[in-house]
Amino acid sequence: MSHHRVQGFPEHVRVVDVGPRDGLQAWPDPVPTETKIAMVNGLIDAGIPQLEVTSFVSPRAVPQLSDAAEVLAQIDRSRGAELTALVPNAKGAARAIEAGIDAMVVFLSASESHNQANVNGSRARSLAAAAEIARMGEQAGIPVYGAIATAFGCPFEGNVPVADIVHVAQAYADSGIRKISLGDTTGMATPLLVQERCRNLAEAVPEADIALHFHNTRGVGLACVYAGLLEGITRYEASLGGIGGCPFAPGATGNICTEDLVYLLHESGVETGIDADKLLSLARWTETQLGRALPGQLIKAGPRLHLRQRDEVRSASGRA
Amino acid sequence: MSHHRVQGFPEHVRVVDVGPRDGLQAWPDPVPTETKIAMVNGLIDAGIPQLEVTSFVSPRAVPQLSDAAEVLAQIDRSRGAELTALVPNAKGAARAIEAGIDAMVVFLSASESHNQANVNGSRARSLAAAAEIARMGEQAGIPVYGAIATAFGCPFEGNVPVADIVHVAQAYADSGIRKISLGDTTGMATPLLVQERCRNLAEAVPEADIALHFHNTRGVGLACVYAGLLEGITRYEASLGGIGGCPFAPGATGNICTEDLVYLLHESGVETGIDADKLLSLARWTETQLGRALPGQLIKAGPRLHLRQRDEVRSASGRA
Repeated sequence: MSHHRVQGFPEHVRVVDVGPRDGLQAWPDPVPTETKIAMVNGLIDAGIPQLEVTSFVSPRAVPQLSDAAEVLAQIDRSRGAELTALVPNAKGAARAIEAGIDAMVVFLSASESHNQANVNGSRARSLAAAAEIARMGEQAGIPVYGAIATAFGCPFEGNVPVADIVHVAQAYADSGIRKISLGDTTGMATPLLVQERCRNLAEAVPEADIALHFHNTRGVGLACVYAGLLEGITRYEASLGGIGGCPFAPGATGNICTEDLVYLLHESGVETGIDADKLLSLARWTETQLGRALPGQLIKAGPRLHLRQRDEVRSASGRA
Repeated sequence: MSHHRVQGFPEHVRVVDVGPRDGLQAWPDPVPTETKIAMVNGLIDAGIPQLEVTSFVSPRAVPQLSDAAEVLAQIDRSRGAELTALVPNAKGAARAIEAGIDAMVVFLSASESHNQANVNGSRARSLAAAAEIARMGEQAGIPVYGAIATAFGCPFEGNVPVADIVHVAQAYADSGIRKISLGDTTGMATPLLVQERCRNLAEAVPEADIALHFHNTRGVGLACVYAGLLEGITRYEASLGGIGGCPFAPGATGNICTEDLVYLLHESGVETGIDADKLLSLARWTETQLGRALPGQLIKAGPRLHLRQRDEVRSASGRA
């Protein structure tokens, strides 16, 4: 091969798996705590450097994650993977710190109506909570990251002005929260929006260190990653097997798929430190455990140099 | 929005729908001829400028397309969409010319073993057939295009040397076949390979006018389109709804989905001349007619500014 990396792509990317939290928070079937623990430990064993393992929200609001502390207690910490959890308020932050989390993720929506629908409060209240959690994190010696939901569009309001993203990012940064992820909550991101938002943020809030979080709702999740890579973004959030959304609700598609993302990165010459074979085996095991077909493509097709016998392929061949 | 088009993308792209041929040639259920005709006429009505409507191969080898002439006879020609058909040999070319096709597509595989498996003959024999068909086309006043299958990898041989692609493209060009599509027959294309192959071809066979044909087997189909757009490639082949592959065979995924591709292009500021709403309605209608879930994402999610009511989205919201 004459080139070793796609022109303009960074050398190394940090892949963050958010499946245990974002993927399972709306899963329609009960998932045993031991399955979650095995998933997380498998991800760590495959070399995933950072994971959002759970959410310290009200167990009443998200019963799927009510075993947050129990999961965290049984994760293999020896490999040094960074374990994060979502915390909506000071109460959740206190529980997360108590449970021994590595870093906390605060969040709010860039659009007011989504924030109201999601946490039943205003963006201003969420920003105040974030500032309080940032102070708690500082006291406990635990980093706090910030997520901006509906950063590429709101299912209620439509387009979200880039000024709103800049406003939230600046408020986060003013509270000392500099690692900020742009969340494509309902799959409205496009490469043009990625390019525009990354450039605006780099100029307006240069102290922000941006991560990207896409859903594959409209099929362009990895195209959005492509746009992000060309903007020099080196942290991407994804979920094993593409777990997420609700298998019963057409339109609610999950996060981009971790192993498909890693395949794209490795085949593009970008290093991740992840063992792609272990990751794919884990995704297949997880699909079996969850008992529903997952949207990831590599699960079905295997890696590209998984060679076939002639009679195995002929009937499916494209003939051109 | 501060930019109107993704940086480096071309202004206009020609989207070629190959679903009636590539999508339906391996479809497991019988598809009524009138359904095919309605699909093709619907695509034309939506503004698709070029379609691969069928294949003049042996009805014994591909019974799904044995109604080739009948389909072609009932297509709305008033809109000026260019209708092409795949022809494997002089006999097929004679049938295609007789049926009144606009342009013929010859094909061979870049890898010898895939060509043997696909057409039971050598690449040299396929190239000789292509040259003969090019002469027939010239006499009949019908353009002949060339497809190169397994252009990004072979399911039997693995990686395919770029020199083999250049060799076939040069042989095509020497026969007067200058419009050449690179076929990702079993979904082995990656952005790096797209970048490398497009650059090598532009240098080695500058008279070739390249189109790209991807399958979404490993989830990176639209990322490969992204790479192609940055190389200045302006013709892409896709299939309505992502029809194709074999729904029974894990691993055999279809072409990239036409309406998802058009969504990516329009949202990136690239013009296609296609009515995206009509296209999406047609994809949904086709899914109903075919009676199986199709892989396209837009079918499930709708366009990005299809706004929701709060109670419709809340349970599926990502909460970050």
